[in-house]
Amino acid sequence: LPKRELFALVAVPAVVAVILWAPAWVVLALIVAVAVLAADELLAMARRRGVPCSRVSPLLLLAGLMVASWCYGATGLAGAVIVTLVALPAVQLAGRDAPRGSLAAVSIACFAALFVGVLGASLGWLRLLPSEPTAPRLLLLFAATIWIGDSAAYYLGSRFGRHKMSPRISPNKSIEGLLGGTVATFAAAAALNVVFSLHLPWPHVLAVAAILAVAAPLGDLVESQFKRDAQVKDSSNLIPGHGGLLDRTDSLLYGAPLVLGYLVWVGLVP
Amino acid sequence: LPKRELFALVAVPAVVAVILWAPAWVVLALIVAVAVLAADELLAMARRRGVPCSRVSPLLLLAGLMVASWCYGATGLAGAVIVTLVALPAVQLAGRDAPRGSLAAVSIACFAALFVGVLGASLGWLRLLPSEPTAPRLLLLFAATIWIGDSAAYYLGSRFGRHKMSPRISPNKSIEGLLGGTVATFAAAAALNVVFSLHLPWPHVLAVAAILAVAAPLGDLVESQFKRDAQVKDSSNLIPGHGGLLDRTDSLLYGAPLVLGYLVWVGLVP
Repeated sequence: LPKRELFALVAVPAVVAVILWAPAWVVLALIVAVAVLAADELLAMARRRGVPCSRVSPLLLLAGLMVASWCYGATGLAGAVIVTLVALPAVQLAGRDAPRGSLAAVSIACFAALFVGVLGASLGWLRLLPSEPTAPRLLLLFAATIWIGDSAAYYLGSRFGRHKMSPRISPNKSIEGLLGGTVATFAAAAALNVVFSLHLPWPHVLAVAAILAVAAPLGDLVESQFKRDAQVKDSSNLIPGHGGLLDRTDSLLYGAPLVLGYLVWVGLVP
Repeated sequence: LPKRELFALVAVPAVVAVILWAPAWVVLALIVAVAVLAADELLAMARRRGVPCSRVSPLLLLAGLMVASWCYGATGLAGAVIVTLVALPAVQLAGRDAPRGSLAAVSIACFAALFVGVLGASLGWLRLLPSEPTAPRLLLLFAATIWIGDSAAYYLGSRFGRHKMSPRISPNKSIEGLLGGTVATFAAAAALNVVFSLHLPWPHVLAVAAILAVAAPLGDLVESQFKRDAQVKDSSNLIPGHGGLLDRTDSLLYGAPLVLGYLVWVGLVP
């Protein structure tokens, strides 16, 4: 077996076990750790492009933002966003390079902290907001549906891909892979709803699958444009055969707030 | 009289009259209009540096964010921040230049929308949250204290300035101007508390003046680094003799969330 599959064989059961059986705070702590590393990959891309981004302050603010949002809800999130937007431009003033490249450096530091932080906070809310017995399985349905759809797109695309999807931004993606991934996303959401005995009404399963079928490839494409811009293939080499943490979480980040918004809107979550 | 003073002679009474006597929604609508133009100046600076920023979408999202925060509080703000962070990276995918410069372009678009939007929303909250009879006068105390401190720093600095404050970022500012501005800030806050019959307890007046004495010059310096970076003297030429709207509002943007946070913390505002 190649490195990619070998690593998945070990990592997937471990991640599934943690989501299913670990207490909420362990899952949240893992989300913070992954978010900090993923945001650091984004900042590293900016430095590759010559933008003098600070590193420590946006990552600390990101961690604080996620914790504040989980402890104090929307008020905590709003306060943490304000602190981030006031602190990072001031920190940049003390930078060695200021004012050269300040606008881009401050903007990318704020973007790394807020994009990964705010969207990652929604991922934590998916674990915190639903009632306790179903929350772990609901989070796993969300994550596994994305990963299954993504893997289907990858394997079907590399086998049957003929027509390029977006040659400028992500030249390896094909229409065939996108369609295969879409079918797999719907199938996975439906199957996991049964396997995990979640008993979600089928229209909601369909809606969540539809959201993820759009949001997951879109999140992937959004990150691809940043990687192309920085002229790197992967966001880092942290995960053997899978690239960086941002590569593996971009679709989760994009899907989480949209699914959360849907669940709140239809009243499935308080 | 030179253009700078002549314009102030007309504009200052008009702004004071609007803050004091116009209904809240007029003041809020003005804040949105000024914020949209100020954020557009920030985006224009980025384009001067060759960053292919989109223009319409961040400005629309900024306006929506302010309105959402005033209608639905912290929940509205959190939702609007999420929408901004999901929408702008996706919009960039459709851009003519994508993926060249994507990371900086998306980051600056998000920063312009969120920095001006979220901090400007706090300015609106300063008008909305305090009880109605005092709210207009409290907002005027806040704005006038900043403007008086800023003008004192400008006139005292250009007359008595000997020691440069931050030669790299804002070469015209002097320590003498900063000190004069600080004294004027405390004096203005105290005088306006009496003139407007606000009867704020003096320790709170002192605390608000202390926050503004730091936040106002800091906000000015933060914007100066962006202007230096873009190699422009003013953010635009919209206001005769005074530069752009961002130049005239940077200190308000920086001071508003900090003063609001203080007023909420000590319970002067619900």
